[in-house]
Amino acid sequence: MKTHNFSAGPCILPGQVFEEASKALLDFDNLGLSVIEISHRSKNFVAVMEEAVALVKELLNVPDTHEVIFLQGGASLQFAMVAYNYLTETGKAQYLDTGAWASKALKEAKGLGTAEAIASSKEANYNFIPKGYSIDPSADYFHCTSNNTIYGTQMKSFPETDVPVICDMSSDIFSRPVDVSKFDLIYAGAQKNLGPAGATLVIVRKDSLGKSGRYIPTMLKYTTHIEKESMFNTPPVFSVYVSMLTLRWLKEMGGVEAIAARNQAKADLLYGEIDRNPLFVGTAATEDRSNMNACFLLNDEAHKEAFDALWKEAKINGINGHRSVGGYRASMYNAMDLDSVQALVDCMKELEKQYA
Amino acid sequence: MKTHNFSAGPCILPGQVFEEASKALLDFDNLGLSVIEISHRSKNFVAVMEEAVALVKELLNVPDTHEVIFLQGGASLQFAMVAYNYLTETGKAQYLDTGAWASKALKEAKGLGTAEAIASSKEANYNFIPKGYSIDPSADYFHCTSNNTIYGTQMKSFPETDVPVICDMSSDIFSRPVDVSKFDLIYAGAQKNLGPAGATLVIVRKDSLGKSGRYIPTMLKYTTHIEKESMFNTPPVFSVYVSMLTLRWLKEMGGVEAIAARNQAKADLLYGEIDRNPLFVGTAATEDRSNMNACFLLNDEAHKEAFDALWKEAKINGINGHRSVGGYRASMYNAMDLDSVQALVDCMKELEKQYA
Repeated sequence: MKTHNFSAGPCILPGQVFEEASKALLDFDNLGLSVIEISHRSKNFVAVMEEAVALVKELLNVPDTHEVIFLQGGASLQFAMVAYNYLTETGKAQYLDTGAWASKALKEAKGLGTAEAIASSKEANYNFIPKGYSIDPSADYFHCTSNNTIYGTQMKSFPETDVPVICDMSSDIFSRPVDVSKFDLIYAGAQKNLGPAGATLVIVRKDSLGKSGRYIPTMLKYTTHIEKESMFNTPPVFSVYVSMLTLRWLKEMGGVEAIAARNQAKADLLYGEIDRNPLFVGTAATEDRSNMNACFLLNDEAHKEAFDALWKEAKINGINGHRSVGGYRASMYNAMDLDSVQALVDCMKELEKQYA
Repeated sequence: MKTHNFSAGPCILPGQVFEEASKALLDFDNLGLSVIEISHRSKNFVAVMEEAVALVKELLNVPDTHEVIFLQGGASLQFAMVAYNYLTETGKAQYLDTGAWASKALKEAKGLGTAEAIASSKEANYNFIPKGYSIDPSADYFHCTSNNTIYGTQMKSFPETDVPVICDMSSDIFSRPVDVSKFDLIYAGAQKNLGPAGATLVIVRKDSLGKSGRYIPTMLKYTTHIEKESMFNTPPVFSVYVSMLTLRWLKEMGGVEAIAARNQAKADLLYGEIDRNPLFVGTAATEDRSNMNACFLLNDEAHKEAFDALWKEAKINGINGHRSVGGYRASMYNAMDLDSVQALVDCMKELEKQYA
């Protein structure tokens, strides 16, 4: 019986990726060696890195103005790197505060210089995406978080502005088409739609760099990694390799347009049930609902024991909500099949049969 | 026929570790899920992190004064973190310049404040470890690199000083006993004796932190990661898992004392042949020779083609020397068996038969 993995991250990846990675751990490229015991400068691994970068460019239609690099440290290290590389000593940065991670990103900028939240949904426990804010045209950059895993909200559009736009797309990159040319920098921890934890993807407009005027430690400087093609020091070999396999799978699936349609179908199925079933209620504003993470509550906590028993019986995994929202969170990343969402919906319907 | 992997890093790990990791990629802990698709906060992964930390403490006899954490970014990010956390605005740091990596570590400290090399073997292409230097007792810290992978040199002892000692042990940690209590901070990229690339081990004396008086970005602050037990953000799950498996293996092998004896036997075998065979010459000062990486040259480049054909025929991999030294570099990390070193020595003897 299949386990349905709704984990928020690290999360489900395609089964064929696990299969191939499992084999490569024993023998990679018929070398008689594991993929994790060869030099990162060997032609075999250089080919992996090059293919990973090429697939990112192809799948997201990255323009020639932008570079693609793989780093370490997760989005959390990017919070600091963004500020070091873009925030000038006398300038200011503007942040859209849509959740705990957006707020942490802002904190790192504040540590270095002047930065502020120009809009926030904190008072509403981040259950919507603020709109109607205006970005100061003199700002060094505007920072936003495209998808908020904890609260189940997602930006459906991005502001039009002449200010450089920097976006943390950790939890929805590769889930839908995005116009990369509109962003000066996009970053994403790998561990949702891209691959295992341990790699961080950065897509950066080359001519946006070198303007902060600050001393930047070598490892925090984007140009360091661009110049060395993500090999300034030993890259996270296995995480990059599995990311490459996942991107290959995504291309086979038809790319981001095709996966976006599949993700929409999964989201429609689950949100449809949340709205229809009298025992449940969604927590995020309808128009801002995330197609990656659906957060919902039981209307009556008395049904918790019964519902938990139902989804455990169905081999559903990882749907407990984050402690700051409570209830349930179903993460439906790219690799999840519709039948897993159906399995969850079936449990919701069964609960209704028993109690409604 | 077995491939003998002399790669300098990423490098050979125990076969049983590859086997177990390969299985865990398909099904971990009988969860029906891959080790890379479960939450890092699940009890199954928390148990992995806790066991990894406990094994580090046990194998290196880490005193209670010190904390063990797993980070990302490799030794290169540590170069900056060390300076941020230990170098005061008005103080100075003293570095032992024993190679390219030691020199890069110094560069990051110089970027932030006052730092200097108090001894260097650069003029001799780093073919020895400087001795007889004195450490200024007023220095904020003294930094050294225990093993220099590129040049095949290794510190056989560490200076006795009241100044905090910080050591990059990336390429020889767990290869021999070390008195952790003598160091305020030890760091190591995982990708030699510990595990795959993508994890970085730090062992730090708690009461040495919080004294630099600088603003430190959250991710570069050691206390951030100590307080959150290496889970401030998503850790490099797979690299930590494989490191844990490798440490389990090391314990089974009898720990660092036993592995040190095995490493000594391998080094004795190879250096014995380098010194005996008239066709070869070692590049590092005899007293400073590394037990991890043996660098040697052919006395006559005319034999290169024949020697290369011999070791390729023997399925030896990864022994080309680094471009800055040339010749050959045989890395004999913990997981390498004596028979692999014997295979290389047999090639050297065969060359002698043909040409001496």
